[in-house]
Amino acid sequence: MTRIACAQIDPAIGALAANVELSTGAIADAVAHGADVVVLPELATSGYMFADADEARSVALRPTDPAFDAWRAAAGDAIVIGGFCELGDDGLLYNSAIALDRDGVIATYRKTHLWDREKLIFTRGAALPPALKTRHGAIAVMVCYDLEFGEVTRQVAVDGVELIAAPVNWPLFPRPEGERPGEVITAMSTARLNRVVVAVCDRAGVERGQPWTQGSVIVDPDGWVVAEVGPGPGLAIADVDLFATHDKTLTEYVDLLSDRRLDLY
Amino acid sequence: MTRIACAQIDPAIGALAANVELSTGAIADAVAHGADVVVLPELATSGYMFADADEARSVALRPTDPAFDAWRAAAGDAIVIGGFCELGDDGLLYNSAIALDRDGVIATYRKTHLWDREKLIFTRGAALPPALKTRHGAIAVMVCYDLEFGEVTRQVAVDGVELIAAPVNWPLFPRPEGERPGEVITAMSTARLNRVVVAVCDRAGVERGQPWTQGSVIVDPDGWVVAEVGPGPGLAIADVDLFATHDKTLTEYVDLLSDRRLDLY
Repeated sequence: MTRIACAQIDPAIGALAANVELSTGAIADAVAHGADVVVLPELATSGYMFADADEARSVALRPTDPAFDAWRAAAGDAIVIGGFCELGDDGLLYNSAIALDRDGVIATYRKTHLWDREKLIFTRGAALPPALKTRHGAIAVMVCYDLEFGEVTRQVAVDGVELIAAPVNWPLFPRPEGERPGEVITAMSTARLNRVVVAVCDRAGVERGQPWTQGSVIVDPDGWVVAEVGPGPGLAIADVDLFATHDKTLTEYVDLLSDRRLDLY
Repeated sequence: MTRIACAQIDPAIGALAANVELSTGAIADAVAHGADVVVLPELATSGYMFADADEARSVALRPTDPAFDAWRAAAGDAIVIGGFCELGDDGLLYNSAIALDRDGVIATYRKTHLWDREKLIFTRGAALPPALKTRHGAIAVMVCYDLEFGEVTRQVAVDGVELIAAPVNWPLFPRPEGERPGEVITAMSTARLNRVVVAVCDRAGVERGQPWTQGSVIVDPDGWVVAEVGPGPGLAIADVDLFATHDKTLTEYVDLLSDRRLDLY
């Protein structure tokens, strides 16, 4: 079994040093709980509600930044995945997520589907998330709105990904009483249609008037929520069987991937 | 507004005449409630749990069968969509759905994704569902397992479909207490990711030991269930704004279709 943790923290806009301290503490806490994979929110080092690109640039990091040395030092044996505001070698800003362990950076992924006003600040990534082969499973890193595109979530399942790990900042949308957030419903559907594990780490708090869904969840390959945080900061933690994702059959004659009609689409 | 009705009836395996009477009565009931579109279950004229292809063949119909004259006579001003076991001109059996109105057959769609033992009985359809331009909206007809393939549901939204109407027979799967059925979760996700209306008509009862989910739902373009039946036979009915599906934006800079990265997939 693989122990997944989503650390739903509450970063403060622009407070780089404080956010690095907060997120590093959250990693250490998750590792103390035995986590093999730790997921942090989108833009965990910077906060989200930038007034403009200049403000984002003031807290942009390169993947070689010492902030990530702090994450690595806290990682123990775990893989850590978290969002940050990236300054590219090309001088452009990206809404990125880094995957790292104690030995170094495994990969940086740049969000390919930018949400709303992010388009005024960031450049969209040029490549879909690869399947990262880590010692704790085959992982695809996505950021927030990426999850809403079945084209991408299907592709990584076809590529053999066992776990989709997604830092998000879900702005709160209204929903009927008793219903899960729409984004959680899509995460559940994604898991069951592809028989993959989906771990989503949302953020807590209210930032510059923007409330968040606080919807962190870990979803098993049957599509059921096996851990969640609820309102406020906290840790969602669950043991999942990543090997179970290799079997895409539901019955004797049903296989979710081989049943696709690749002759028609 | 367009009034959609899903008639969750309980057909009996092999009882063609009784099922035509039952389904025709359900159409008449929905029309009496003002329905503009009436959806019936998968294999509504035949039942589902065929022992083998010979049994299916014994109740297979052509789209010209008088059974559908009965449906047309009950249709009033409505469009009727329902599942049946089709005998093709090629002599093969298809798990099909017919769309008709009082003037005649609009289209017959042959299920393209066959579920489980259906593969031992039916031939899979050779074409994805077209966008049917009817006087009650642009409708895509799908059958059951088709809904689980985002490739198809996305395509019809791109094609301008306002309503996905799906006859289904959902075999009951276990689920955690308090959760909606997984298939409903996928229907909700499909609606919100594409901003389309999804109307699913399941069946009631237990057939040859197979219990059904009885999960008929009508889902609005925000992804919320606006009508459902629950256990037992019954009618789900809702007024939906199909015109609202033309607007794929969620915020000033978010458009669910134009935000796709067609340069990457």
